[in-house]
Amino acid sequence: MAAPVTIALDAMGGDRAPDVVVRGAELARERRPGLKILLFGDRARIEPLLARARRLQDCAEIRHTEIAVAADDKPGQALRKGRESSMGLAIEAVASGEAAGVVSAGNTGALMALSKFVLRPLSGIDRPALAALFPTMRGESVMLDLGANVQCDANNLVQFALMGAAFARTVMGLPRPTVGLLNVGEEELKGNDAVKAAAQILRGSSLSFEFQGFVEGNDIPRGATDVIVTDGFTGNVALKTAEGTAKLYTEFLKQALRSSWRARVGYLLARSAIESMRDRVDPRYYNGGVFLGLNGVSVKSHGGTDATGFATAIDIAVDMAAGSLADRIVEDLKLSGGQVEPPQERAAS
Amino acid sequence: MAAPVTIALDAMGGDRAPDVVVRGAELARERRPGLKILLFGDRARIEPLLARARRLQDCAEIRHTEIAVAADDKPGQALRKGRESSMGLAIEAVASGEAAGVVSAGNTGALMALSKFVLRPLSGIDRPALAALFPTMRGESVMLDLGANVQCDANNLVQFALMGAAFARTVMGLPRPTVGLLNVGEEELKGNDAVKAAAQILRGSSLSFEFQGFVEGNDIPRGATDVIVTDGFTGNVALKTAEGTAKLYTEFLKQALRSSWRARVGYLLARSAIESMRDRVDPRYYNGGVFLGLNGVSVKSHGGTDATGFATAIDIAVDMAAGSLADRIVEDLKLSGGQVEPPQERAAS
Repeated sequence: MAAPVTIALDAMGGDRAPDVVVRGAELARERRPGLKILLFGDRARIEPLLARARRLQDCAEIRHTEIAVAADDKPGQALRKGRESSMGLAIEAVASGEAAGVVSAGNTGALMALSKFVLRPLSGIDRPALAALFPTMRGESVMLDLGANVQCDANNLVQFALMGAAFARTVMGLPRPTVGLLNVGEEELKGNDAVKAAAQILRGSSLSFEFQGFVEGNDIPRGATDVIVTDGFTGNVALKTAEGTAKLYTEFLKQALRSSWRARVGYLLARSAIESMRDRVDPRYYNGGVFLGLNGVSVKSHGGTDATGFATAIDIAVDMAAGSLADRIVEDLKLSGGQVEPPQERAAS
Repeated sequence: MAAPVTIALDAMGGDRAPDVVVRGAELARERRPGLKILLFGDRARIEPLLARARRLQDCAEIRHTEIAVAADDKPGQALRKGRESSMGLAIEAVASGEAAGVVSAGNTGALMALSKFVLRPLSGIDRPALAALFPTMRGESVMLDLGANVQCDANNLVQFALMGAAFARTVMGLPRPTVGLLNVGEEELKGNDAVKAAAQILRGSSLSFEFQGFVEGNDIPRGATDVIVTDGFTGNVALKTAEGTAKLYTEFLKQALRSSWRARVGYLLARSAIESMRDRVDPRYYNGGVFLGLNGVSVKSHGGTDATGFATAIDIAVDMAAGSLADRIVEDLKLSGGQVEPPQERAAS
């Protein structure tokens, strides 16, 4: 529990940086006594915050840089100027082995590009992917890709399945997770070419997880499988649609509970129950998009989150590092035959 | 209001056919005094139901057939045996001009295949699409394609935009609807090749609607635009994800409101308000997937709906027929230049 793990934080990324980053680190440290923190960013702005964070006094260190990646920088710009930025230096700390993982609430495209460039994809992985946990009827599931790769072939999808399952074993603690491939129907004949071919490969491979075939959009919130695999276009739309629908529902409920005096009184009585329900879908407890398939742990926090949300993202980074997620992915690739599709198909694609 | 419109119903399609079909027709007729109904299916089963449906006595007629498309028939099977089925004959009634539209709660793939084969796509439309209304923060929007075409090119997406806008003008009564193209970000550089090319074509065309560029998943429940355009794979996943998330939320709310006696009492007081909220997202009032881009009106009702839901599907069919939706689509195709992409690109695709 208290094994020492060092996490590098991009102190300048996110809407309310560096304040939320420092307070998030303090919350995470409260739960993890062995945690060490490297804060990359503007010393003049971080130092006064750190002075007030009593729990971080003996375990956090500031690494000064004046450069920060802007929220609207393109990934290309980030690659050019970003390596000396708070984000870039935090990632370098993982590459050098000084830190076990990096967390940033900054520009997603920049974090993805810099992480990929500095940490490099794992041997055998063509395309790293963005994954995240979300609440379901059964608890929680992880979905990938959420937007790193908008156009995917069957081979990419198969690798996403391996990476997602390794995440479920490591971070979610499931010995043999179930995996579903997102499609428009459960029948074998349905779907586009990529999902049909990916299903065929997965059905014929040795796997350290349970491949359950196709799942549909409604199976995501139902928690039909522990891991949902899809291309980055569909995954991004599905995740944002679910978030938007939850907001719509919350808004409708709020309006309904204000619509009469009976409803208002009812709300006062049911308030703590209704709030506990909101906690179950509170995005702060599901904060942290993780990049899977890299030589190193890189976690993206929502830009607009608060200290609680940022602490969740740090927790995920610690669990990924402690569970040697990258090693598991490499093992699973070997188990499935060292490659996930026959050589002749690979040459043709 | 009371203009006579004849709608052909597949009386044998759906989980509780023919009962739900006959009672749905009665409800629809109550709202539309000019409505005439043709019921295709097994006379022995329909006749006793019709005898009890007083409002349908003078305006409904049974057309007997013993053949019915099964829920698990493949589209190919439906095409071979289905033309003499209750579904096929109901569609034929639209093709012959006897009915202005057809409604079926039967097998979606079969209805799509038979409608396309019998009614034929409109001149200039390459791929008919499946569209549906859904509730949003601002009221309601229509999304397409929902699964008729799992792989789409830019040209298909542009045609979906034209067809969706024509539906919004006709059925939703919006003189100049707004249209958004579903993507993983709002910036011009994001997305897959098809959406980027479609956006470019739409920006350069004369349109009878307001093209607002890219929208994201969370914009769907937000009601950011009146029409949401996407490929059938993404649209199917997004719609089912939204439905599943709404169910998850309802279930969490139900559990919360049972969790303590205070919550139970609160629920009793707020009950009618909470139920009115559920009505706002009640799928029965959004029942009816419509096939756009055909020479004739064809509407798919949910297989598991009740009479209220089936009546909604009939309403949509009547509105589409009364508003001459097909003519509007053809006009809009002409307005945009008679074709939706430059001839040289078309030849190459």
